[in-house]
Amino acid sequence: MKQNAFYAQSGGVTAVINASACGVIETARKHSDRIGKVFAGRNGIIGALTEDLIDTSKESRATIAGLRHTPGGIFGSARYKLKGLEENRLEYERLIEVFKAHDIGYFFYNGGGDSMDTAHKVSQIGKKLKFPVTCIGVPKTVDNDLPITDVCPGFGSVAKYVAVSTREAALDVASMAKTSTKVFIFEVMGRHAGWIAAAAGLAGRSSADAPHIILFPEIPFDERAFLERVKRCVDGYEYCVVVVSEGVRNPDGGFLAEAGTRDAFGHAQLGGVAAAVAALVRDRLGFKYHYAIADYLQRSARHIASKVDVEQAYAVGRHAVELALGGKNAVMPTIVRRSDSPYRWTLGHVALSRVANREKLMPRSFISRDGFSIASACRRYLQPLIRGEDYPPYRDGLPRYVELENIAVPRRLPENFMLR
Amino acid sequence: MKQNAFYAQSGGVTAVINASACGVIETARKHSDRIGKVFAGRNGIIGALTEDLIDTSKESRATIAGLRHTPGGIFGSARYKLKGLEENRLEYERLIEVFKAHDIGYFFYNGGGDSMDTAHKVSQIGKKLKFPVTCIGVPKTVDNDLPITDVCPGFGSVAKYVAVSTREAALDVASMAKTSTKVFIFEVMGRHAGWIAAAAGLAGRSSADAPHIILFPEIPFDERAFLERVKRCVDGYEYCVVVVSEGVRNPDGGFLAEAGTRDAFGHAQLGGVAAAVAALVRDRLGFKYHYAIADYLQRSARHIASKVDVEQAYAVGRHAVELALGGKNAVMPTIVRRSDSPYRWTLGHVALSRVANREKLMPRSFISRDGFSIASACRRYLQPLIRGEDYPPYRDGLPRYVELENIAVPRRLPENFMLR
Repeated sequence: MKQNAFYAQSGGVTAVINASACGVIETARKHSDRIGKVFAGRNGIIGALTEDLIDTSKESRATIAGLRHTPGGIFGSARYKLKGLEENRLEYERLIEVFKAHDIGYFFYNGGGDSMDTAHKVSQIGKKLKFPVTCIGVPKTVDNDLPITDVCPGFGSVAKYVAVSTREAALDVASMAKTSTKVFIFEVMGRHAGWIAAAAGLAGRSSADAPHIILFPEIPFDERAFLERVKRCVDGYEYCVVVVSEGVRNPDGGFLAEAGTRDAFGHAQLGGVAAAVAALVRDRLGFKYHYAIADYLQRSARHIASKVDVEQAYAVGRHAVELALGGKNAVMPTIVRRSDSPYRWTLGHVALSRVANREKLMPRSFISRDGFSIASACRRYLQPLIRGEDYPPYRDGLPRYVELENIAVPRRLPENFMLR
Repeated sequence: MKQNAFYAQSGGVTAVINASACGVIETARKHSDRIGKVFAGRNGIIGALTEDLIDTSKESRATIAGLRHTPGGIFGSARYKLKGLEENRLEYERLIEVFKAHDIGYFFYNGGGDSMDTAHKVSQIGKKLKFPVTCIGVPKTVDNDLPITDVCPGFGSVAKYVAVSTREAALDVASMAKTSTKVFIFEVMGRHAGWIAAAAGLAGRSSADAPHIILFPEIPFDERAFLERVKRCVDGYEYCVVVVSEGVRNPDGGFLAEAGTRDAFGHAQLGGVAAAVAALVRDRLGFKYHYAIADYLQRSARHIASKVDVEQAYAVGRHAVELALGGKNAVMPTIVRRSDSPYRWTLGHVALSRVANREKLMPRSFISRDGFSIASACRRYLQPLIRGEDYPPYRDGLPRYVELENIAVPRRLPENFMLR
C-alpha cells in the first residue's frame, strides 16, 4: 500500500536542517514503490493545519540535492507548539483530517524536544481516529539539548562557527591589545544549555589561549570571581577574550541581561548579555572593551559548516525514512558514538516518548572546576563534531543557495482552519 | 649598498594584513643582494620607538608563507599616531636613531591614512637628519576610505563576510517570519564611510531580496522614512532585514547610537547602533526583532576571505618592495582598475602626500535615490572585490593559523624611550 509522506520543519532553523530534508526526500524518492509524494508543510506544522502544502515532487533532482548545502528552513519553519491532546484536540484532529485528505501515511517532523512531543501525540491520535500515521521525529537543534542522541544535527556547525570565530577574533584582539581593546566579549546562543559556549573552548589549547573565560548558563554568574579573572588575564596576557552564553543567570536565577543593561526607555534588552558584561568590565575595571553578538549569523553560517554535522543531518533524514519503511513508529533516529578519536558513529533510534520535552544540559564534569572553561572530557566530546569542511558552491563570490519552485498542493478540504 | 628594512602594521588589523607582510618579506628575501634583514616592529611603530624589533629572518619560509592565510596582525599593531613634526620632533628623531642603529634604509608602513602621513614625515625627517630612509606606505583598511587606490586591501574580505552573512541570516529570518522575528538588524563597521554596509547590498538582487534597508553614514537618518520602509517591507515580504553602519548619524550630526540606547548607568553604549534601531522598531512598530553585531568577527574572518583581496594584499606588499628598489620614495602602491567585468587590475603608485589624512566616503551616486540601498554603479564597483574563495588549511576542524618564533633583535641603543 503506497501512501504519501508529510515533512515539516519546526522551531529555530539551522545551517543543516535542509540537509535533513534532502535526506528524507531523496530516500523517499528511492522508495517510490512504497512512498508516493513528499509534501512539505509551508511554515512547518502551520502548513499542515491550514492545508498549505508544498509539492516537493515538483522540485528537480538538482534542487533537492542543493538543499544539502542551503541554510535556513527552505519550506519555512514555525514556532508553534501543539498543546496537550485534551486542551487542543481540535488541532490534532485537523492534522489527521488533512493527512487523510492527502493520503499521508508518514509524518516526518524535523525539530527539537517540543516537536518530538508533537510527533508522538500525532501517532497516538492517528490510531484513535482510525487513520494510523507512521510518525518519525528527525532531530535538529543548535542548542544540542536533546537527550540520548550523541549530538543534535545543527549543533556541530554552530560549534565550528563559534570556535573558528573565537580563534579569529582573538588574533585581532591580541594584535591590538597594547594600545586598544583589552577585553573582547562574544555572545553566543544556546538557551539554557552551554553547549554552544563550550564549543568556543575548542579555539584554544592552553590557559594562555583565547577564550580565557566562558560563561555557562549552568554556572551561576559570580561577579567577583569573573572580574578577578578578567583582571588577572589582562595583567598576564595583555588581553582577555570572554565568551558568554545568552542564557547566563545570576545566583538568584534571573537572566544576567535583565539585571544589567536597560535601554533609554527602561526596557530590559533581549539578547543583550554581552552589553551587560561589557558594562561591568568598563565600570568596575575600566578596560577598553568591544563586543560581538553573532545571533542568527551563527546558526545560518552554512559557509563554515562542519562536514560531520552535514553528514549526520543528512543521515538522520535518510534513516527516518528507513525506520518508517522498516515498520517503526513514534521513534527518532539517533547518532550513536562508537569512538572519540577517530570519531566513529552509527545510527540508532529511540522512542519519541523518551526524548519529548526533555532538556540535556552540560554535565558538571564537562566544565572546569573554576567554572570558566571546558574540561578535557568536554573537549573529547566536542572535538570530532566540528571536523571537516563542506563548502557550498559559489558564484560571483557568494554561495549559491537553492530556491524552490514552491508549488502548492491543490487543496482538498472545503473549510479553512483558524489558527489559535 | 645593502641595508636592512623595517616593516610595521598600524591601526585596526584585517583578515589579510599579514598577506601584505608576506608580500613584503618574501620579496625582500628575493632581493637579498640589496636588502639585508627585515625587522618588524612589535606592536607597530611602538616597536620602532622602543627599539623592540622582531627579526623576521629567524622565521622559516613556511611560517612566512603561512602569513598569507593568517588573520590579525602577526607582529602586533598599534593605534599610535605620530603628531606633527614641530609638536613631536623627538619621536621622529628617535625613529631615525633606531633606524640608524640597525642600519635600516627601508621603511614599509602598513596602514591607513594616518600611517601614510607618518611614513611621509619619516621620509622628510630622515633627509634632514642626514640618514635618508626610503619610506613606502602599504595600504590597508577595512573601511576602504583611502583615496586614489581602487580599493584598500582588507576591505574585500570584510565585504565578502558581510554579504555572505547577510544572505545566510536572511534565509534564517525568512524561514521563521510567519511566527517569529520580523525585523533583523545587522550592525557592521566602517566608521564614517558606508563601504562595508554597502557590501551587504550584494546579498540581494531585487527589492524583495534582503537586505531591504541599508543605513549609510553618508545619509542622515530619517526616522520616519525608515519606519515607513520597515513597515512596508514586513507587510509585503513578511520580514525585513536592515543593515546598519556603526557610523550612522542623526540629522543633527550626532551618532544615532548615542541618541538612543543608554545602559542602566546612563552611559551611551559604544557600537550599539543596532540596539538603538531595534528599540525604535519595537517601540514604534511593535515587531519582534533580533540583532547581530559582527564587530571584530567581520575584520578577522579569514575563513571566508575574498581571493581577490588576498591577492591584492599580497601584491601591494610585494610592489612596495619593488618600488623601493626601483628608487621610489614617499609613495604608496595602488590598485588600478582596468575593467569591471571581467575584473582586471594592475598596480600603480601615488605620492604619500596625496593620500595622507584624506578620507574617501561613498559618492552619492553609489546610493539609491531613496538612500536605503546601493545603486547599480556601486554594485558594479563592489561585485569583483568579493570574488573567489581562498580557504586557509584546516586541522581538527579549525584553521591552521601560523605563529611566530618571535625572536627579538638585540638592542643597540643604551637608553629606553619613554612613550607619550
